[in-house]
Amino acid sequence: MNKYMKMAINEARKGIRNGHGGPFGAVIVKDGVVVGKGHNQVVKNNDPTCHGEIMAIHKACKKLGTFDLSGCELYTTGEPCPMCMSAILWANIEKVYYGCNILDTEDIGFRDKKFYEMQQIDARKAFVHELDRKQCLKLYGEYKRITDKVNY
Amino acid sequence: MNKYMKMAINEARKGIRNGHGGPFGAVIVKDGVVVGKGHNQVVKNNDPTCHGEIMAIHKACKKLGTFDLSGCELYTTGEPCPMCMSAILWANIEKVYYGCNILDTEDIGFRDKKFYEMQQIDARKAFVHELDRKQCLKLYGEYKRITDKVNY
Repeated sequence: MNKYMKMAINEARKGIRNGHGGPFGAVIVKDGVVVGKGHNQVVKNNDPTCHGEIMAIHKACKKLGTFDLSGCELYTTGEPCPMCMSAILWANIEKVYYGCNILDTEDIGFRDKKFYEMQQIDARKAFVHELDRKQCLKLYGEYKRITDKVNY
Repeated sequence: MNKYMKMAINEARKGIRNGHGGPFGAVIVKDGVVVGKGHNQVVKNNDPTCHGEIMAIHKACKKLGTFDLSGCELYTTGEPCPMCMSAILWANIEKVYYGCNILDTEDIGFRDKKFYEMQQIDARKAFVHELDRKQCLKLYGEYKRITDKVNY
C-alpha cells in the first residue's frame, strides 16, 4: 500500500486508541517529504474543528512558515468533509488521496454526507440570514482601500 | 443596527487595522451572552484555517468546555465560506447571521464563491482520489468496535 496512507492510518489508530476522536488521520507531503501529520482530536480538545486534515494543515503551515501549501499533496483515511475540503482549497493543496469515502464514513456514524448536502444554496438559505449588510459593506470598503495588504 | 453584528464589525476592524487578514469578524451568542469572539488571522498566524468564525468557535468551545455549541447563534461580517459553514454545522450552532454575501466577498478578492462550486461532487472528483480503501475500512472497523467512545 501507499506509504503515506500507511502513515495516515497509523496516525488515526493512535488517535482512536487514546480516545481523541474519530478514525481520521492525515499526512501532507511536499516534494516527497512529510511536512505535516495529524489526527482527529475533536473529543480530546473539545473542539469540532480539530479534524485530522486541519491538524495536519496547522503543522505543515507552522513548519513551512506560510499559509500557502502550493505544491503539497494530502493523504487522509477518510474523504474530507466540506470543512476540510475548503481548508485544503484555501491552503492551495493540489492533490488529495483518501481511503474511505463519505458513505463509509456515514456508516460509522458521521454527518459528512449530510453536511455536503447542506452546502447547497437552498439548504443554506434556511439556516443563514442576511443582517446589516450596509454597515458590513462599509467595513469591506475600508479593507479594499488598504494598499499594502497581504492577499490569500 | 444589531449589537452583536456591531461587535463582529469592531472585531473585524481591529484585525484589518493590524494586518491580521481579511475584514471578517464573528461573535457567538448563547442565551443573550457572548461566549466567543474572533477575527480573521490567516496572515498573522500563517494559517489558512484561521477565519473569524473558526477563531470564535475555538473560543466558545474553550469557554463552555465542549465541542457542542447547541443553542448558540453566530454573527459574522461575511457569509461563511464552506469551511466555516461546515465548522458551524459540526459545532451544532443553530442560526447564522451574516452581513455581506459571497458576491460582496468575491468583489474584495476572496475565493469563497469558487470554493462553494468546488464542493459539488463533479468538481471534487477531479481533485480528490480514492486510494487504499480496503486498509482504511479495516481502521473504520476497529473504531466501530470501540464501545465506550464519545460521538460528535
